[in-house]
Amino acid sequence: MKISDGLLQGDPRALGRGISLVESRHPSAQELLRKVFPHTGKAAVVGVTGTPGSGKSTLVDALVERILETYSSLGIIAVDPSSPFTGGAILGDRIRMMRHSTDPRVFMRSMATRGHLGGLAKATAEAVVLMEAAGREFVLVETIGVGQDEVDVVRLAESVLLVMTPGTGDDVQIFKAGIMEIADIFVLNKADTPDCDALERRLAALLDTAAQDVPRPPVVKTVATSGLGIDGLWSVLLERIQSRTPDEKRQCQKRRIRWLLRDILRDRIFEKLQRLIPEAEFEAMVDRVCRGEIDPYSLADDVLRETGDA
Amino acid sequence: MKISDGLLQGDPRALGRGISLVESRHPSAQELLRKVFPHTGKAAVVGVTGTPGSGKSTLVDALVERILETYSSLGIIAVDPSSPFTGGAILGDRIRMMRHSTDPRVFMRSMATRGHLGGLAKATAEAVVLMEAAGREFVLVETIGVGQDEVDVVRLAESVLLVMTPGTGDDVQIFKAGIMEIADIFVLNKADTPDCDALERRLAALLDTAAQDVPRPPVVKTVATSGLGIDGLWSVLLERIQSRTPDEKRQCQKRRIRWLLRDILRDRIFEKLQRLIPEAEFEAMVDRVCRGEIDPYSLADDVLRETGDA
Repeated sequence: MKISDGLLQGDPRALGRGISLVESRHPSAQELLRKVFPHTGKAAVVGVTGTPGSGKSTLVDALVERILETYSSLGIIAVDPSSPFTGGAILGDRIRMMRHSTDPRVFMRSMATRGHLGGLAKATAEAVVLMEAAGREFVLVETIGVGQDEVDVVRLAESVLLVMTPGTGDDVQIFKAGIMEIADIFVLNKADTPDCDALERRLAALLDTAAQDVPRPPVVKTVATSGLGIDGLWSVLLERIQSRTPDEKRQCQKRRIRWLLRDILRDRIFEKLQRLIPEAEFEAMVDRVCRGEIDPYSLADDVLRETGDA
Repeated sequence: MKISDGLLQGDPRALGRGISLVESRHPSAQELLRKVFPHTGKAAVVGVTGTPGSGKSTLVDALVERILETYSSLGIIAVDPSSPFTGGAILGDRIRMMRHSTDPRVFMRSMATRGHLGGLAKATAEAVVLMEAAGREFVLVETIGVGQDEVDVVRLAESVLLVMTPGTGDDVQIFKAGIMEIADIFVLNKADTPDCDALERRLAALLDTAAQDVPRPPVVKTVATSGLGIDGLWSVLLERIQSRTPDEKRQCQKRRIRWLLRDILRDRIFEKLQRLIPEAEFEAMVDRVCRGEIDPYSLADDVLRETGDA
């Protein structure tokens, strides 16, 4: 059976293989995506981000039960720009730890396409497409860290949870990463630690300076390890998902398609560049610049002129 | 006087204006870079990275004195992918705090080109070019955080210091970000805190698993606030810079030119894409995909075929 058929019938093995094709940029990935694309756009897509150690994994694990009370199936994509030093080890441990790892209603995969400029966001968007095509009603995209990569990744979600913890200095990093702007719900996890009030005040002050004309995003306190606040968080999230107007949904879908289309076009043009300039020729150009024969800006002009693209 | 003339004479105002042109992607930036490029490639370029709060700023501040004992002038580029929430405030405070902010031998600038895919790395590389053209003998590139962006940014340095602190859980984030691979010297700052031995052991274990055939990078302990270990760090770094063979220097310069040339070509092709597809036309394409008339992959094929670039 073809992967696309199996995938559209919801077969988890076909889904897993499809995601592997996307992740490895296999030539057949595009044909698969083309085929299943008409069957997408219906799932609730939620992003979860925050610094490592903020308790995202425990939080997601706690949310799974609540999600499955409302939705019949769930896909989790853990975005993990792994270092070769650790491989996927940290995530592997994570999967084994999950209470729901053997539940057929839960499908979990990691995405680890490192080193491709912008490639991680595109691969994740395409994994969401495959999850939707395979009939997953709820798709959760979780990042390991918080940075510009992660901002790009969770942007594709219709709702983004930003998980922060008191007393870690995380917040400086989060504020710097520009991720606050895309958070729809702020989760203060480990809310039973002493510095939580201070973090809440700092966050409130920042939100005051920023959000002038948009409604201020809710701030929910949780203790994921004990389950405290998880019901509250889920009801805020579900309310947010269910209260969306058709127009809001359309705008969100449009935004995702805009990014995906831009990424696809960009990829194609990169490929074209690589076809136009073989590696050996590129190295010869680098050598010319190194020898001081030409500056790289004039060289780029020459290259584009020669290929008729200036 | 033209900016390029002032810059080549080492005028700090011309250097500042040049970097602003590069940062804002002003059309005249390219002409400037083209002119000054032949006068570059001679400075020692060192990257400093690590999570916020690891004491990088204090460390750099402490290193400045040592650097100026050997080199006559220093440029510092602080890479700060600022959030609109904080603006450049954190960095502004930083500059005011620096002991050397009024020393004419020290020129400090921030780079904050957010949101451009890969744009931060290119803008930083070009700021280094301008610093070198203005005669700065030593250029220090410091990042605020640690992530894929920062990896791309410090890659252009010939030597990279990775600053870690005990007891923060930073190391997990650093290992995940893939930044360990590009570190030439590991700095364990705040080495007077209790968990330093544990961090050192974890780091040693990781380095054991990774570096098989390359020499193991040195690990230096410092307490930047008291100056402890700074002399040791500087002698390790200076030894590293001065012991480079001409061939190693050439390889390093080649690597930088390779990235810069690739970024320039990529930028040009992006610009071409934007010229080819005006915003309104692109939005019409997004609408077609939203209405389910076509999938984005087939649409991209059509676009490239129509523009004769398939």
